[in-house]
Amino acid sequence: AVRGLVAELHAADIADLLERLSGDERRSLVELLRDGFDPEILPHLAGNVRDQVIAQLGPRVLAEALSVLDSDDAIYLIEDLDDDIQAALLATVPPATRRALEESLAYPEYSAGRLMQRDLIAMPAFWTVGRAIDFLRETPDLPEEFYEIFVVDPRHKPIGAVPLARMLRHPRKVLLRDIMDRDVDAISASVDQEEVARLFRHYSLASAPVVDDQGRLIGVITFDDVVDVIQEEAEEDMALMAGVGSEVDVNAGLVRAVRQRMAWLGVNLGTALMVSSVIALFEATIEQIVALAVLMPIVASMGGNAGTQTLTVAVRALALKELTPSNAMRIVMRETGIGAINGLVFGIAVGVAAGLIFDPFIGAVLFCALFANMLTAGLSGMLIPLALDRLKVDPAVSAGVFLTAVTDIVGFFAFLGLAQLVLL
Amino acid sequence: AVRGLVAELHAADIADLLERLSGDERRSLVELLRDGFDPEILPHLAGNVRDQVIAQLGPRVLAEALSVLDSDDAIYLIEDLDDDIQAALLATVPPATRRALEESLAYPEYSAGRLMQRDLIAMPAFWTVGRAIDFLRETPDLPEEFYEIFVVDPRHKPIGAVPLARMLRHPRKVLLRDIMDRDVDAISASVDQEEVARLFRHYSLASAPVVDDQGRLIGVITFDDVVDVIQEEAEEDMALMAGVGSEVDVNAGLVRAVRQRMAWLGVNLGTALMVSSVIALFEATIEQIVALAVLMPIVASMGGNAGTQTLTVAVRALALKELTPSNAMRIVMRETGIGAINGLVFGIAVGVAAGLIFDPFIGAVLFCALFANMLTAGLSGMLIPLALDRLKVDPAVSAGVFLTAVTDIVGFFAFLGLAQLVLL
Ligand SMILES: [Mg+2]
Ligand SMILES: [Mg+2]
Ligand SMILES: [Mg+2]
Ligand SMILES: [Mg+2]
Ligand SMILES: [Mg+2]
Ligand SMILES: [Mg+2]
Ligand SMILES: [Mg+2]
Ligand SMILES: [Mg+2]
Ligand SMILES: [Mg+2]
Ligand SMILES: [Mg+2]
Ligand SMILES: [Mg+2]
Ligand SMILES: [Mg+2]
Ligand SMILES: [Mg+2]
Repeated sequence: AVRGLVAELHAADIADLLERLSGDERRSLVELLRDGFDPEILPHLAGNVRDQVIAQLGPRVLAEALSVLDSDDAIYLIEDLDDDIQAALLATVPPATRRALEESLAYPEYSAGRLMQRDLIAMPAFWTVGRAIDFLRETPDLPEEFYEIFVVDPRHKPIGAVPLARMLRHPRKVLLRDIMDRDVDAISASVDQEEVARLFRHYSLASAPVVDDQGRLIGVITFDDVVDVIQEEAEEDMALMAGVGSEVDVNAGLVRAVRQRMAWLGVNLGTALMVSSVIALFEATIEQIVALAVLMPIVASMGGNAGTQTLTVAVRALALKELTPSNAMRIVMRETGIGAINGLVFGIAVGVAAGLIFDPFIGAVLFCALFANMLTAGLSGMLIPLALDRLKVDPAVSAGVFLTAVTDIVGFFAFLGLAQLVLL
Repeated sequence: AVRGLVAELHAADIADLLERLSGDERRSLVELLRDGFDPEILPHLAGNVRDQVIAQLGPRVLAEALSVLDSDDAIYLIEDLDDDIQAALLATVPPATRRALEESLAYPEYSAGRLMQRDLIAMPAFWTVGRAIDFLRETPDLPEEFYEIFVVDPRHKPIGAVPLARMLRHPRKVLLRDIMDRDVDAISASVDQEEVARLFRHYSLASAPVVDDQGRLIGVITFDDVVDVIQEEAEEDMALMAGVGSEVDVNAGLVRAVRQRMAWLGVNLGTALMVSSVIALFEATIEQIVALAVLMPIVASMGGNAGTQTLTVAVRALALKELTPSNAMRIVMRETGIGAINGLVFGIAVGVAAGLIFDPFIGAVLFCALFANMLTAGLSGMLIPLALDRLKVDPAVSAGVFLTAVTDIVGFFAFLGLAQLVLL
């Protein structure tokens, strides 16, 4: 009965169900589904749940998946496997499929070549709508879903595309040549998936042709795969900025999660030690004026937060290619200005309060330190990610560390240094 | 000549160009494009650039846009206008269009009713493929892009959908009834756009029917609009967590940006003051052992970072509905465990180092404080967003403030309090 109920669900829903069950429940359900386990479930599963399910069902389920699934989903399942396991699996599929999969795997990870599906529909420009429809009706082995027909020249280069809606709206005798879109953006198979996502978003594409080095049509990328990429890339930036590593999934393996986070915490410890050594320089000053120790966290946390605000804007703008050499200067000025304005506002407020509670000189020092630190935060919140991007380092990964180091060190130096000068 | 060059660009590219130009250059280009300005450019523009362009071209361009654009894009342009301006604009469009737009505007912001486009193609189940194709060929005023035909019953309730690819692959005499998907998920117009995005992602939908309270088909949402939602929602969470407000765009107005960030910095100042007052409790202790002031930032920053890691995982999992009552307990344990493990590792490392440099007791105190704070960070990094979510508060907005308050206060209390107990 359970089997019948579950079997009626969409593969994505069965995957969700499996993810939510505890280990034991999951094993029982997989056992129940063993005969006739739908390979379409596998690409929907989170990495480590998928590994468990495959381990339980045995390698045959993967071999079956490779011959049943669309090539992009097949690639997704096997791209992270060890080379020898991958080779063994590929040996089980028909030669034509195998060659196609091997070609895709030859493209870099996260490239259009990995994202594309090999099955597509291409026709010559001299076909009529009628002939195209007859071909679609009579050819048995076509992809289940497609959104446009690609028009190719004799060397199989894409020269146009006909959306299905347009095909359906023209009389049978019209030539594809006369109704095709001529400005199709063919995507090179080696292009990074982030660029693919940008193109799809920018032009609202349902699908796009992928070409090899010679410009020949070799695959198609569809919007649903790009939707996953957009979600992943946005999550990745969020995760990297928070130092969670690339693995933000609640279903990720514990050991891996601990290790990835430890790496970032280690880097952060390095920065914290630098900060401590700055404070250590002023031990004598703090010993005489303990109020400084009380007020220190305010300078550091306001600077850190103002910097993180700017950094977030910068990382997003770089990811979306909205920050370019032509407008970088303007945006750096803008962010520094925002930092300075907020530094002024909060510097005055906190400075006056501290002046009343502790001592006017402490208030003045606090004002100067806050203003200087928040201005620096705005400036370095832009310059650090821009510099990292120029050096081809992902600013989402590393900008945060540098930024916190800068704002903490500038903040404490300004605050404690000024205090030493003015108050002692 | 420039006008000719620009006119050949895709509307989205012209919008990008306008966004990247400086104010003066932008005004000149808009002037150049004034005659025959393509209203399709407007929905692609960032908010404040769009406002400038509309101000320059005058309200007529908006009125033209309303009658030319798809209804979803029209709604997008006018939904944030003042009521009287909106009414004045709506008065200029034909009654049928106006009624459709007013109906959409009656649905809440960020709902499916705002996202949907009114033009769609619906047919009765007894039509044949041939009749459907003839209808598509002969009806002049259909939407430019569509991906499936909805099948409706006599009361206009959606009972099925036929993807265009399937329509094209069946002979003319086949009934729509026999080839339609029967498990179409009709989306209620009042559903939030995040739920819409989740459905599209989950089921890889190209489009989905939208129904009113009576279950009647009133619109269609297409993947391209959902792609924008996914990008926006992910960005929004990232921006909210960093306290940039919802406006993370580099083209956003300066005043608004300053104000939004100021709000968050103000909240953060409140927390910083609480932290300061905790430190103030231990002034006497710090005066006697200045090393405590030097080591304080380590406890706070390690706890804060560990907490942010967990918080990021929680916010993402809540947004994607991967964190549910059925697995919340397991994931809370998992994250607390990760916090405890990392607390142990870094507590030992830093504690031993501090013991050697300063004093074994200081080392022991530092170890205990770090371990307690990082364990607390993992626990509260999950419990705070879960509690906020239960209270229907967006955890992306506010969890960070509470979390930092908890880790700072717990960290300083543990560190300075233990120091006072053990060392004095
Ligand atoms: Mg899932
Ligand atoms: Mg598929
Ligand atoms: Mg992968
Ligand atoms: Mg990437
Ligand atoms: Mg696919
Ligand atoms: Mg896929
Ligand atoms: Mg990235
Ligand atoms: Mg744009
Ligand atoms: Mg449109
Ligand atoms: Mg929302
Ligand atoms: Mg639309
Ligand atoms: Mg739209
Ligand atoms: Mg949200």
